[in-house]
Amino acid sequence: MSSSKAYLAIIGVGGVGQCFLRQLSSLPSSQRPSLIFVSRSSKQLYNSSYAPVSASDLQSSSSDILSLPQIADYLSSAPGKVVLVDNTSNQDVADSYPSFLSQGISVVTPNKKAFSSTLELWDGIFDAVGAGKAMVYHESSVGAGLPVISTLNDLVKTGDKVKKIEGVFSGTMSFLFNSFAPADGAGGGAKWSEIVAQAKDAGYTEPDPRDDLNGMDVARKCTILARLAGLRVKGPSDFSVQSLIPKELEGAGSAEEFMQRLPEFDAEMEGYKEKAAKEGKLVRYVGKIDVEAGTVSVGLEMVEKSGPIGGLKGSDNLICFYTERYGSNPLVVQGAGAGGEVTAMGVTADLIRVLERMR
Amino acid sequence: MSSSKAYLAIIGVGGVGQCFLRQLSSLPSSQRPSLIFVSRSSKQLYNSSYAPVSASDLQSSSSDILSLPQIADYLSSAPGKVVLVDNTSNQDVADSYPSFLSQGISVVTPNKKAFSSTLELWDGIFDAVGAGKAMVYHESSVGAGLPVISTLNDLVKTGDKVKKIEGVFSGTMSFLFNSFAPADGAGGGAKWSEIVAQAKDAGYTEPDPRDDLNGMDVARKCTILARLAGLRVKGPSDFSVQSLIPKELEGAGSAEEFMQRLPEFDAEMEGYKEKAAKEGKLVRYVGKIDVEAGTVSVGLEMVEKSGPIGGLKGSDNLICFYTERYGSNPLVVQGAGAGGEVTAMGVTADLIRVLERMR
Repeated sequence: MSSSKAYLAIIGVGGVGQCFLRQLSSLPSSQRPSLIFVSRSSKQLYNSSYAPVSASDLQSSSSDILSLPQIADYLSSAPGKVVLVDNTSNQDVADSYPSFLSQGISVVTPNKKAFSSTLELWDGIFDAVGAGKAMVYHESSVGAGLPVISTLNDLVKTGDKVKKIEGVFSGTMSFLFNSFAPADGAGGGAKWSEIVAQAKDAGYTEPDPRDDLNGMDVARKCTILARLAGLRVKGPSDFSVQSLIPKELEGAGSAEEFMQRLPEFDAEMEGYKEKAAKEGKLVRYVGKIDVEAGTVSVGLEMVEKSGPIGGLKGSDNLICFYTERYGSNPLVVQGAGAGGEVTAMGVTADLIRVLERMR
Repeated sequence: MSSSKAYLAIIGVGGVGQCFLRQLSSLPSSQRPSLIFVSRSSKQLYNSSYAPVSASDLQSSSSDILSLPQIADYLSSAPGKVVLVDNTSNQDVADSYPSFLSQGISVVTPNKKAFSSTLELWDGIFDAVGAGKAMVYHESSVGAGLPVISTLNDLVKTGDKVKKIEGVFSGTMSFLFNSFAPADGAGGGAKWSEIVAQAKDAGYTEPDPRDDLNGMDVARKCTILARLAGLRVKGPSDFSVQSLIPKELEGAGSAEEFMQRLPEFDAEMEGYKEKAAKEGKLVRYVGKIDVEAGTVSVGLEMVEKSGPIGGLKGSDNLICFYTERYGSNPLVVQGAGAGGEVTAMGVTADLIRVLERMR
């Protein structure tokens, strides 16, 4: 464990980014890397001497704006090893990971797009990692700080045979369905459109709830897990994803218009709920990766009340790993899978791992 | 990530050890460290030139038997970095960890005794790690391969405030109570002594079931988690542990005698079960670490049927982390917490981490 100075670059200091900065500042000073680059939207802060900068000075910065290739050049010339923390969900930044990695800059990120877009990008990232000059860690790309990626990687690396991965991968979907069709039947009288409206008002959905209801967030997470389990999934449009945006409302202009017309969909959702109830089951929005069959699916499922998914509460995520070693009872990880603090926790823990490996 | 040759020493090639050897052999050869020492009971195999040895030659080995200090001397003179994998539950080997670590030999182990005995040993281990010459990883000391230790360490290191840890930490206890008082009431007619006898016959308990029923295994695991969460617990006898061995049977000679007299205890156990049932609850054997109050307790609890512990099946373990970040819904990890393959998985995954950090 030789000692060489570690440098840190941060792209994105919004919601997750602010939580990350707070967690970073609570690390022992001996473990904190030297911050040499920070950016947000159209502001950047850095200096040619690689002297430490402070994220709080970003707003008043007058640094010239570097392009992504220029950022990579700047960082790769630093007088020590560099970790880039990307706290955005930006596709352009994700597309640059292979370039950063091949220039020796390690990447830590919750950015799902990097691992769920094209297979070319996926291969570009992991080929660069395989070349051994830099590392990539992305725990928070699925389930925020829950130990999902690390657990799956451990199962695979130690030679277990992952047969199926199944779960609830969206805090928003979890909340909507746990409210719409609660396991204990209590308070389950509200219509689907009312539940969505309440969730929107409480800030539990994206500003436009269609960004949750289209299922793409879940599909991206399933793409990531499927690939880590060994399936060559081309992307989230490579498999069946059930959108909860009715066909008739796909063109419904603004989020407000969409919400106004959502009650037209209530009868259909009530139908799913009743059909499940007749079988003594619950309707839930489930992601499923059948590794043995080589298939991925995302959409409504009828689940057992007494099963792990049926027992879920609030906006919790739940991920079940069915493997050869674990047999009929899966390895289960459960808890909050969204939110600034828990997402940042995955990022900070990953950063600590990268720094430990750099020493 | 400089490259230096890594060497491996293994103490213990019994049940877990055999599974570990199989998992090790499935790693890519470029990642496999060179085995230079292996031992089991009174056999050892090594050579003074640090040439690779094969575990399968151990039985026919005529190597002189080295004492633990001599093993440490031998390994510390190897021409590269060394990891010792201790697959035993031996106190003497555990007591030697500080000496191994301070001589630069990293340790990977499922050996609970190393982390649940005296605080002096605990401090000796982590002071040696803090000196920075070697690492210690012990995921499988609690919950076998389930991500328990790594998750707790991540929570603590990233600055979350762990308030309470609660769960079912023994596969045997889990099986006994899930059979004795099942959540769905089905098949719950058998007497406690009958359930224990069935479990013993099926090999689900230790050869002498008292080694499970005394609660010490759970108390050791709770000691480890409490210490990682920051409590200076002196050891498993530093807090209240409810033994399920009736006082009258403590002196009951052999395991057979104990099993013969266990029915005397059936009425008392039936009483616990009925008391819980009257409140609509279930009796379970629970470990609880209240970090805020600074207390640890192990014993029978009445739990909600609809709660996480009430939903447990088979011989699964379940660990709930209640923290500031995760709020009222805990981070939960669940699955098989015992067995050769899943215990070895935690060891192999830890070994991979140590090797990654050595590169």
